[in-house]
Amino acid sequence: MTSISVDPRSGVARTVSFKDTSDREHVDIMSRTAQAAPGWAAMSGRGRAAVLYAIGEALEGAGADLIAVANAETGLGITRLTGELARTTAQLRMFADVIAAGAHLIGAGVAVPQEGAATGALQRCLLPLGPVAVYAASNFPFAFSVAGGDTASALAAGCPVVVKAHPAHPELSLRTARLVEDAISAAGVDPGVFALVSGMEEGVRLVTDPVIRAAAFTGSFAGGRALADLAGSRAEPIPFYGEYGSVNPVIVLPGAVSDQNQFVRDYLDSLTLGGGQFCTNPGLLIAPREANLRTAIAEQIATRPAAVLLHHGIQAAYNAAIEQLRTTPGLTVHASTQTVPDAGFHVLPVVFGLSADTALQHRELIHHEYFGPAGLLVEYDNADQLEALCSQLQGCLVSCVHGGTTSELQSRVLAEAARRSGRVVFNGWPTGVAVAEGQHHGGPFPATSNPLFTSVGPDAIMRFLRPVTFQGLPAEFLPAEAQR
Amino acid sequence: MTSISVDPRSGVARTVSFKDTSDREHVDIMSRTAQAAPGWAAMSGRGRAAVLYAIGEALEGAGADLIAVANAETGLGITRLTGELARTTAQLRMFADVIAAGAHLIGAGVAVPQEGAATGALQRCLLPLGPVAVYAASNFPFAFSVAGGDTASALAAGCPVVVKAHPAHPELSLRTARLVEDAISAAGVDPGVFALVSGMEEGVRLVTDPVIRAAAFTGSFAGGRALADLAGSRAEPIPFYGEYGSVNPVIVLPGAVSDQNQFVRDYLDSLTLGGGQFCTNPGLLIAPREANLRTAIAEQIATRPAAVLLHHGIQAAYNAAIEQLRTTPGLTVHASTQTVPDAGFHVLPVVFGLSADTALQHRELIHHEYFGPAGLLVEYDNADQLEALCSQLQGCLVSCVHGGTTSELQSRVLAEAARRSGRVVFNGWPTGVAVAEGQHHGGPFPATSNPLFTSVGPDAIMRFLRPVTFQGLPAEFLPAEAQR
Repeated sequence: MTSISVDPRSGVARTVSFKDTSDREHVDIMSRTAQAAPGWAAMSGRGRAAVLYAIGEALEGAGADLIAVANAETGLGITRLTGELARTTAQLRMFADVIAAGAHLIGAGVAVPQEGAATGALQRCLLPLGPVAVYAASNFPFAFSVAGGDTASALAAGCPVVVKAHPAHPELSLRTARLVEDAISAAGVDPGVFALVSGMEEGVRLVTDPVIRAAAFTGSFAGGRALADLAGSRAEPIPFYGEYGSVNPVIVLPGAVSDQNQFVRDYLDSLTLGGGQFCTNPGLLIAPREANLRTAIAEQIATRPAAVLLHHGIQAAYNAAIEQLRTTPGLTVHASTQTVPDAGFHVLPVVFGLSADTALQHRELIHHEYFGPAGLLVEYDNADQLEALCSQLQGCLVSCVHGGTTSELQSRVLAEAARRSGRVVFNGWPTGVAVAEGQHHGGPFPATSNPLFTSVGPDAIMRFLRPVTFQGLPAEFLPAEAQR
Repeated sequence: MTSISVDPRSGVARTVSFKDTSDREHVDIMSRTAQAAPGWAAMSGRGRAAVLYAIGEALEGAGADLIAVANAETGLGITRLTGELARTTAQLRMFADVIAAGAHLIGAGVAVPQEGAATGALQRCLLPLGPVAVYAASNFPFAFSVAGGDTASALAAGCPVVVKAHPAHPELSLRTARLVEDAISAAGVDPGVFALVSGMEEGVRLVTDPVIRAAAFTGSFAGGRALADLAGSRAEPIPFYGEYGSVNPVIVLPGAVSDQNQFVRDYLDSLTLGGGQFCTNPGLLIAPREANLRTAIAEQIATRPAAVLLHHGIQAAYNAAIEQLRTTPGLTVHASTQTVPDAGFHVLPVVFGLSADTALQHRELIHHEYFGPAGLLVEYDNADQLEALCSQLQGCLVSCVHGGTTSELQSRVLAEAARRSGRVVFNGWPTGVAVAEGQHHGGPFPATSNPLFTSVGPDAIMRFLRPVTFQGLPAEFLPAEAQR
């Protein structure tokens, strides 16, 4: 299959000369990846850092071009894409800084002689797992795609990377890959440390190939779970880091809202940001009926403009889900009244209101992710209902609690939120994930496949490193991978 | 089924009133475990540490009794079991120290305001995963059984523990569990934080029960892989930390052996320690033919006494494997010439010699773990053969390299060993794993199910904790689990 690049604003399609990877090409790529692995692993942290800095510079140099291509293929807009590219190059530099300092490589090595235990000083080091398959996401064409955080952290760890391109931005994927390949070649590094592949079949071949030693995925639950199962059922299972969809609750405690209009403005900004296509989208707002947020929501959402979604599949799923909710008994509909352009993949923002009782009786409503600018507002009448709702929340990437001075109820709600989330925001909104030390972007299943790891922040490199303890080995004999 | 306690030295069996856990009992235990989880998680590190210290004291107080029971059920001998119990209580205290200090709870929390990213200081904490299933091993009746390292680290992390007893030491399992339960009750803690269960069916029920949030297993590859597959195919998959069997290579470089007799004495000591039933047993010795280790091995092994194995199943598998090797063409046999007592599960130590060519042509020989006091000696004639052998080694817990001054060959062999092992010992032997900072007891598949984690040393607690980042939350509002 040849790739098709579609402008989401107009729906106009054109072909891009980027064919699905064939079986034969796959074999060739795997062979080159395997050959490049030991050299890349043995390279010094500074050497690898130089390549990552160079990739970042190349992306910045071609920034205007890349952003234009990304905008045409995703409709996410120049402002958002400019910010995302800056984040992406910052990520490349962050991981480069981590490995240039070498701080991640050497663990504590205290020798504690013990009866019955072999002696010799213990030196724990972190070595790369080996070649990593990265599955690009559609909704972050830079930050979770070809040269995004998964690629940057795996390369930094010393692992060659094979990226499975997302079909929704083929032209951008090709251009980004070429810049990465050029930076690698210019550094005199074996070009086998990076490859771009394409196609559904290749996605399956990749995660099941013995050369691949770990995989990182950002995308839908169905696709991710299928790949995770393949990774786990290999003759030699490999670590699979899947970030799936997420229903992120915003829980409003009684008395927490002082300015309804401002609160709802902030809520709708977060709900509609990027067309509502963030994994951190606040899909579920749980608020006291007495706060009467529904009036402000009904009023404000009317003037929110139509959003353009990434591709036809997302638009179709959104429209189908919204249509079903519109005809579900017990739900009130607050929708934008703006016009929807006929062309492309435009949809209207909408919030559905329902009572806590309805939500508790039809939990499938609050467990479903409505990908796009759609939210549920669940109104509760008392603390019992609020706590019952909290107990029914599933694992998520992020939850928000709007509260105030401390109370028993607030403590319990915060604890329930923490139990189910990778991140808990107090008096704030979930969208916008700081790439920073201390960040955790992950969370309990079904938000991710493994709650112990983060895909954002410097710790993301830990997904691709494994400890090895050297016992009684003179420091000068340590393998190059473990030397600074 | 009622449990049968068998003395491995005599083969004499007696019943122990410890029945397989029934479906109904399982439901009851899971309910009590789930109820106890939030309270145990919310308890301060110091509070949980006090319970772990108390368990350690209780085991020490009953030490003589426990060791006698263990010796009767395992035949491992008073000296070994005394050391193992000391290690076990030291482990309990080590994890208690870790959580009392609280150092593991709070991650770095640097707020880095970023364009487009939500602000608010980030505070990363580690919260318990929830109830943990621990599958006890037969070969470490204390250190990897009811109150062993998996139990200690999971309890320290704030996770209730349900231990699936190993059927080879039922009386010891019951007694140990009673001491743990008494210490928990005496501390005024919900008794639901610990339970002991029994039976094959219960093992399956446990790993598939929604209450269980992680599992740790030490045992055979077949059993572990089956449980891992169950853990991964649940509606909500859970982390599974399996430590399986391991073929641990000892690689001797040319010129590394100066005193053949001493070297072979040390080798045979390690090979026959604990009846050769250590997961770190040096099953595969790769040495230059010119070192002529075979002569010293043949001479010394003749006088090594019969070993007693843990149970009939291990004895039967050992004898069957040895019988097959005895009739395999190309192998020379060096065996103990001592008498084998008729009673119980006694076997003779044996080492099989083969050429590098034979090993490379029949790789199944060097990939099989001969559990018990049996080893292979593979002799190579040149560096090419040595490197070919190294490239065929599978993932293992530990490998040893005997070398000397640095050389290109030594560097390559060390790198190959590191690539395949969780621990690399230089000029030493694999048995005896120090419980210490810097330790890594794990390794690439098939040695374990996940190469990123260790089951020995303070870092073992990390298997049962997951990060949560609190954003913009005043410190006094942090959940109790995250406060020191």
